[in-house]
Formats: sequence, structure tokens, C-alpha cells
Amino acid sequence: MKYAIGIDFGTESARTALISLQDGSELATAIYAYDDGVIDERLPGSGVRLEPDWALQNPEDYVRAVVDTIPRVLRESGVSPADVIGVGTDFTACTMLPVRKDGTALCMLDAFRDEPHAWVKLWKHHAAQPEANLINEVAAERGEPWLQRYGGKISSEWFFPKALQILDEAPDIYDAADRLIEAADWIVWQLTGVETRNLCTAGYKAIWSKRDGFPTADFFAALDPRMRDIVATKMSHQISPLGARAGGLTPEMAAATGLREGTAVCIGNVDAHVAVPASTVTEAGRMVMIMGTSTCHMVMGHEPVIVPGMCGVVEDGIIPGLAGFEAGQSCVGDHFAWFVENCMPAAYAAEAADAGLNAHQLLESKAAQLRPGESGLLALDWWNGNRSVLVDVDLTGVLLGATLATRPEEIYRALIEATAYGTRVIIEAFEEHGVPVQEIVAAGGLPDRNQLLMQIYADVTGRTLKVTGTSQAGCLGSAMHAAVAAGAEAGGFATIQEAVAAMAQLKGVDYVPNPEAQRVYEGLYAEYVTLHDYFGRGTNDVMKRLKRIKAAQRQ
Amino acid sequence: MKYAIGIDFGTESARTALISLQDGSELATAIYAYDDGVIDERLPGSGVRLEPDWALQNPEDYVRAVVDTIPRVLRESGVSPADVIGVGTDFTACTMLPVRKDGTALCMLDAFRDEPHAWVKLWKHHAAQPEANLINEVAAERGEPWLQRYGGKISSEWFFPKALQILDEAPDIYDAADRLIEAADWIVWQLTGVETRNLCTAGYKAIWSKRDGFPTADFFAALDPRMRDIVATKMSHQISPLGARAGGLTPEMAAATGLREGTAVCIGNVDAHVAVPASTVTEAGRMVMIMGTSTCHMVMGHEPVIVPGMCGVVEDGIIPGLAGFEAGQSCVGDHFAWFVENCMPAAYAAEAADAGLNAHQLLESKAAQLRPGESGLLALDWWNGNRSVLVDVDLTGVLLGATLATRPEEIYRALIEATAYGTRVIIEAFEEHGVPVQEIVAAGGLPDRNQLLMQIYADVTGRTLKVTGTSQAGCLGSAMHAAVAAGAEAGGFATIQEAVAAMAQLKGVDYVPNPEAQRVYEGLYAEYVTLHDYFGRGTNDVMKRLKRIKAAQRQ
Repeated sequence: MKYAIGIDFGTESARTALISLQDGSELATAIYAYDDGVIDERLPGSGVRLEPDWALQNPEDYVRAVVDTIPRVLRESGVSPADVIGVGTDFTACTMLPVRKDGTALCMLDAFRDEPHAWVKLWKHHAAQPEANLINEVAAERGEPWLQRYGGKISSEWFFPKALQILDEAPDIYDAADRLIEAADWIVWQLTGVETRNLCTAGYKAIWSKRDGFPTADFFAALDPRMRDIVATKMSHQISPLGARAGGLTPEMAAATGLREGTAVCIGNVDAHVAVPASTVTEAGRMVMIMGTSTCHMVMGHEPVIVPGMCGVVEDGIIPGLAGFEAGQSCVGDHFAWFVENCMPAAYAAEAADAGLNAHQLLESKAAQLRPGESGLLALDWWNGNRSVLVDVDLTGVLLGATLATRPEEIYRALIEATAYGTRVIIEAFEEHGVPVQEIVAAGGLPDRNQLLMQIYADVTGRTLKVTGTSQAGCLGSAMHAAVAAGAEAGGFATIQEAVAAMAQLKGVDYVPNPEAQRVYEGLYAEYVTLHDYFGRGTNDVMKRLKRIKAAQRQ
Repeated sequence: MKYAIGIDFGTESARTALISLQDGSELATAIYAYDDGVIDERLPGSGVRLEPDWALQNPEDYVRAVVDTIPRVLRESGVSPADVIGVGTDFTACTMLPVRKDGTALCMLDAFRDEPHAWVKLWKHHAAQPEANLINEVAAERGEPWLQRYGGKISSEWFFPKALQILDEAPDIYDAADRLIEAADWIVWQLTGVETRNLCTAGYKAIWSKRDGFPTADFFAALDPRMRDIVATKMSHQISPLGARAGGLTPEMAAATGLREGTAVCIGNVDAHVAVPASTVTEAGRMVMIMGTSTCHMVMGHEPVIVPGMCGVVEDGIIPGLAGFEAGQSCVGDHFAWFVENCMPAAYAAEAADAGLNAHQLLESKAAQLRPGESGLLALDWWNGNRSVLVDVDLTGVLLGATLATRPEEIYRALIEATAYGTRVIIEAFEEHGVPVQEIVAAGGLPDRNQLLMQIYADVTGRTLKVTGTSQAGCLGSAMHAAVAAGAEAGGFATIQEAVAAMAQLKGVDYVPNPEAQRVYEGLYAEYVTLHDYFGRGTNDVMKRLKRIKAAQRQ
């Protein structure tokens, strides 16, 4: 019996699971909450203040998580280290840092410890928006062919805006950095002593493709002459496929974790992307939605066609041999949380307490009594802007159809429905451009918690929704990739498809569209699309003008 | 020193005040809550069930209110009945009933007591919508010239829809009714023994004008041949001007109330309309807004021009010699009450309790901290449809601009602002059609309770808002009219203007537009108008389609 370890590096903590290669079962899990968590006010140690929109991390936390959790899962499971044939990791992205050529993070050196730009920029560091704007402008002017692969816009969360911000604001740090690297790759470097670069973050976050590589030196020079050689000098041309072996565990890491020296370590990967095979999906036509505070839509196709408004398309970006498409909705669970915190009346809070339910359970049970369309409400799910397909952070939320008889559960349901319509817009964009979506597998926290939501998604999209068998798709997906990195000869698997066959499964709950509800939602969806286009495609830019007035009035 | 009594017949109760003609001060007031209140489930006595949308009253409650409250205000004030020179009344409208030629209400006869159509139909009886639809269709087809005087639509709340519903559903009651009459006129009949018809309800609720009288017999015959002679047989051609003497108090009523036989009784009037002189307004150009659950806008002009979307224009309808215009917003205080009940979170309820504030006070204090436009929100104030200027009950509320940072007080303020924009649309419609509005006087319950609201209205409309001196404009206005009915020779007044000079005043609080806020609201108002026209004038009839879906799903 063989095992692999999957480590899922999240925003606040890392979760490690020791998983059987026979059936994917978790024998033990351990969580390590980062000591410094998300650093968004002051730097640890020096107390240097950060500006708004900054979000950093301490890379030492990643290493501490590894050496804390692996011994714990070994101990708890009682599995012999000899039977653990691989370690795989997945990470938030783009989460990046400047390092020395030996892999030492600059922020770990005394000389740079009180310099914010020396630390890890977490995915949700949003202070590089001016740099993102410049990149988008210059790319559009120059007609860079890669721009349309990313919905026409590079996000401020991605790699080059963050790198350019370092250059703009701390050129000494930029100069001192031998490398700029994803944390996903950095942790693998720490485990193996080998610098690698994974295809997933390179493709989705750093504008790399296997046909064209990175953007050209001329493009970077047009941003800033000092940036011309960033790829040649601070990155790597060697991009490793997903599931490849990065190297073996170093003697130091073996000693610290209790695993055997030389244990196969898989190259880096991204949390959402490893969740796809963990949800049994390795083929075209089956979309995986990772649903939490926001939703990430992943689907594969045979060709890397351009679908307007998606987040990215990367060949081999999810599963080798297929084009991996990613789209997203910026506000899903966040919607419902906002509603509960800001709009649920005291009487409902009391009723929930009496019934022993949490707020969401109460609202769901009331909302489930309603028929589609019965509330007369329609919402645009743009409380946090719109990622796909409009790629516009300045769009805002709308609720329409309110009357004096409108009740909280009706608004709650309208918000759920709005996110379902938003998902359907994404699915239709894929299908119109030659990427079929026949079935949906839901992963993440929401599907287990809200059955009404799942049924509404089935009814609105007209597709059966299935549910991932694991609630920890990150750990499972990373362990599956570790098993592939270890290879069949070591007791692992030759391909991710084989790993899926052995280790991944679905829950036995299918949400099948109800034809009557579907019929009503057809009409409501048509209304949604009309408003979506009216407010989102420039007919009436009232949302942007209100945001400008708001910004002016807040100064 | 002379006095008059004003009786304000409201929806749930009647309020009587004994008022000094010298300065308008109230010496005593008394309230009588109707025994049967609003009858909307079962008939008193027989227990006959009512259909949805019905709202009836018992006319005996009106008489009981008179004989209960007048003795109480006499006693409490210590004023001698000899010094009470007149009694005036104002009423909800259209509130109407079928009676015998001696004034006996049909529902008071044993033969008709268990027949719903024999009772008083209260203003908010909404079951005559099919009849209103027919009236509007037939009038439009026939090109009836009066239709445009009422914003192009007769409301189901008005006189002829209610009369036609009786004919449709209870022809025996229709036949048995020697008269169909406003309760405003019926109570005066009870006080004086004389049947009169007041100009205000005739003009605003029964399509009468001094130039053209009532609609023609041909029009009524086109609705239903049996209705051809309704005016000739069941109404009166004799329409009395406001402030005229209807007659003297009957011996029976004198005995029952303690007033002197023959005391002057003024002809009937309507609650909103008597509030205009009670707010010091008897001239063109000064709008009175009566602000409560809904808002009624009253303004006078020199010519009865057609202003699209108003509720009505009636010559001499408010003040003799001027054209009285009425417009309305169906949902003002109701908006804020809806918000508090359905959307205010438990944490705010707790904070209000801790601070010893009610919910509105807490929300107002928080909303007052915000600058115009700072929330980024914009609402359409159509939670209860739109009366003026769109005259469309099927429009619904919109909130736009929400983000995950949106707070309850921002929504609350956006709703207040939306009602202010709605008022500005009304003002601009008047001004565009030759009815100037230079100043606004606010009456009703809201102005005293919410100073933020008053300032927002001043900033949005760009006009100074003043506040009526009395919180009981109905009683004061009725007493002023009573003093005019009594006449100067009896110690009263020759004209309503003289009564205003002596008895009415403003509070010393003026809300003056703040130029900086005005500038910001100019921009926001322009956005409001764009959405108002987009959703309200047929570009996108999504609200109506949602209502149709809602109706179908509720069956």
C-alpha cells in the first residue's frame, strides 16, 4: 500500500493530508496557521507600516508549515515513510517573491527585512493596479497577441504588475533580486534544492504559452527600459509540465519532516487547478466550478481558442494534452455573507437562534419555499465587479423588482439566482466559441452547505450538477500529482488519468434540472442578459460614473 | 374671542380640535378610534367574508366620532358653545357609500347589512381595478377630453370605478341606492340635514370640472347601459365651493354634541387639500408636500393647464380662484419603514437600543455622516409603483451601485435621496408646463421626524423647504374653512386668505440648499432621470414582465 502527501497552501494556513493511492482516502490531515498570516498593516519585526491595498506574507511560514504538518500526519496515520512515495503542493497564485540565486528570500536577509517589497506579495495584494493599467495600455497599443488570451486584461493580481511595482517603487530590491518567483515554485525549491517553474502559474499568471513563451523583451522595455531583460535575467525559460518530478527531498528536509531523502516532489501547481482532477475531471466538456467566496470555472477543450472575457487559456495548463480554460465570478459566497451581515433583520436573527440554525440555513430554508420568479426580483451579481465575461472591476450590484412586500429571503434567493445567471453567461460564452460544457462538477465550500443553490444552478444552466467527493480538493489533487511525479514504477501512476481512476470520486448527489423551473428561468435569464449588457457593455455607464463621484466625495 | 371646530376623518380614527380664530392655537383635541376600523376581512355583525383588496368602513363610526369628540373638546377647553361659530370637516377620499334619499346609509338597513357593497368603500379599497381598467379603455377609445386632466389614468380608488363595481357585482344595491355619495359629503348631511356635494372630491375623484361638469351620459352608457343616468339620478349637479356654508347644525346634532343649533357647518373637503391653507399657502408658486407613508404634492397655478402625469387639476379645487394641481409619490415613509423592518441588521437594532434611539433615528444619524454621492448608490423609489409622473403601479424598486462595502445607512440614505429625485421629477414636470414651483412647504409626519430628509430634499430640488407650523394640518385647515363658512359677520372670516393670515403659520426652520451638495446631486439626478426613463417609459419593460412572471408563479 502506497501513499502520497498533498499540501495545500492557502491564504491563512496550509493544510497537509496523507492520502492512500489505492482509493484516495485521507488517513490524516494537519493544519498549520501561518504565524504572520496575511500581513496588511505592519511588517513583522520592524513594524514598518504598509499602504492600503497591500497584502504580504512571510515565506518562512511556508517552510514552518511543511516541517510542522508532515511529521504530524505521519504520526497520526502510522504510515511508514517508506510507503510515502511523493509530496505534491498547490498554492494560491499569483503569490510571488524576490529571491537570491540560492533561493533565499530577500526578506529573510537583515539588509532587506524592513523593506515591504522584499516580502512575498500575496495573490490579493492589490497595490499594483497602476502597473496593471500600464501593462494593459501598452499591450493594447502594441497589439500584443497574448492580450486576448486573458480576456483583454491583465489583472493587478498577476505576476508582471507585481514585478513592475517592485521596480517602480523599490529599484534596489528589483536589482538585488536574482530571481522573481512564484511561491508555488519557491516552496518546491526549498523541498528539493532545485529551482523549477511550473506551467500552470507561468501560463495563467505570467503570460507564458508553450507556443510563444513569455512576452518579448521589447514589450517589457516599452513598460520600462530597466525591465527589458526580466525574463532572461530573473525568471526561467524552463517551464515544467504539471505532474513532473521536480526533484527529491533534500537531506535537510527529510530530516525535518521524517520522510525519506529523495522522496519524489512534484513541481508546483495552483489550488484551483489541482481541484479539477480531484473532481474526477480530466477530459473536455466537463466544467469544474470551485465555489467559495468567489467562483472559479475550469474547463478543458481541444484547442486554445479565444473566448472573450475568460481569465485565461493555457495549453496543458490543467491537464497535459488539453487547453485549460479558466473563468471567474468575483463575488459568490461573499454576496451571501454581505447580505447576512448587512441586511438580515433582527427578527430573523432571533428566529435562527430559536431554531438552532445559522443565518444561511434559515434564509435557505425560507428561500427554498419560493418558486422561481415568485419574488419578482432580479439582481446583477456585481457586488465585487464582474470578472467573466465583462472583466470590469468598476461594475456594481443591482437589485430590481423590490416592493413593499419584498422579504429578506426573497432578496437572498435573488442573489443566489444572480450568481447562477452569471455562471450561465460564462458557459454560453464558452459554448459559443467552441468549448462545450455538458456537465458541471461543483467543488469548494458552498456546494455542501447550500442545496438550494445547487438546484438553482442546475435549473438556470440546464445542466446536471455533480459534487466533488472530497471537501479538500487541494490536498487530494496535490497528492494525485505527487503520485504521478513518483511514477508507476514507484507504486504511483503514469498519468493523472490513472490517478483519477484510482483516487478521485464524486458524491452520489446529482442535481438535475427541473423542467418547469428551467422554463421560468429561461425568461428570467433573458431579462438578466438584457440588463447585463445594458449596464455592462457601455450603453449606460452609470456604475462607473457613480464610482467616480464616490471617489471624488471620499477624498 | 371666537372658535371653530375642525374634524379630520382619517383611516383608523377621527381627530377633533377646538381652535382659536385669533391665532390658530388648539385649545383642546380629542381622538375617536373607529369601532370597526378598516373592515377588510369580515363584515361586522353578519361575519360575511370579504375578498382580497377590499377595504370598507362603517358610517356609523363617523357619527359616533362626532358625538364623542365634540363634547370632549368643549369640556376640556371650557369654551362656551356660543363662541364656537363653525364646524368644518375633512375626509379621506374617495371614500364613498350608497344611501337612501334621506341620507340613510344602505348598510344601516337590516335588508342590506350582510351585503358588502352596501357599506362604505374606503379610499384604499382596491377591488375595483377591473372597473378602472374599463373606464380608462373606454375613455381613451372615445377620446374623452377629461382623461388628460388626470394624468391619462383614472385610479381604481376613485368614485366611478367604485360605483361601477357596485353595479357589476351587486346590481340590486346599485338600484336600491338613491344616491352614491362621498363620505365627506355624507357626514355634512348628517350634521346639517342638507345634502351637499363639495367641489374638491367632485373635481379630484369624480371627474367633475366647472367648465364641463361630469362625464356625459353617453360615456357612462358606453361603460354599461344601466349606468347612463348615474349623474342625473344618483348624484347632484349642485357642486358647492370650498369654504361655503352647507347649513346649520340640526337640533338633534346640537343636542348630541353640546353645540348650538344652527352653528355653521362648512361643506366637505379632503384631508390633503385643507392642509394647503393650513400651511399658509393660498397663492400660486408655493408647493405644499404632505409627507407621510406617501407624499401628496399640491400647488396652485393661474390656469388649469395639462401637466403630464399629475393626479389631477381642478379649478377652485384647493383655493377659490386658482387651479389646484395635485401630484403624488406612492411610497415615501413606507419605504423607510420597509427598510427598517426587512433590512436592518440585528447589530444595528442592538446599537439603537443601547443608544436609546429608534431605528430611524439611528439610521438617520449614521446616514447624516455621509456626503452626497459617497455611497455610490442610486435607487428608483418605486417600491409601491410610481404615481407621478409615470402613473404606473407596475413599476418596482431598484437599488444600483451596491458593493461588498455597502452599509445599511448608505442604502437608507439612497432611499431618501430617491424619493427626493422623484419629487424633483414632479416639480420639473410642473415647471415645464407653466406651473412654477418656487418654494416648498412640508407638512405631515415626516418633516418633523427627519431633518436629514428635509435637507436632502432642499439640496436635490434646489429650493428652500419650510415646515408647516402645525402637526395637525387637517384639523386646522378644517377649522379655518369653518371660520370662512361662518363668515366675517359672525366673527369668522370673509375669505380663506384672511383665515390664513390670522390662523396659519410656519415653523421657524428653513432648509436652504447647500450649493456644494446641490452640485453633486445635479449629477446624481441626471443618472436617476436616465434610469427613470429607461425603466419607466418603455425602453425596457422588465419590471412589468417580472410582475407577470410573479403573478403566474403565485397562482
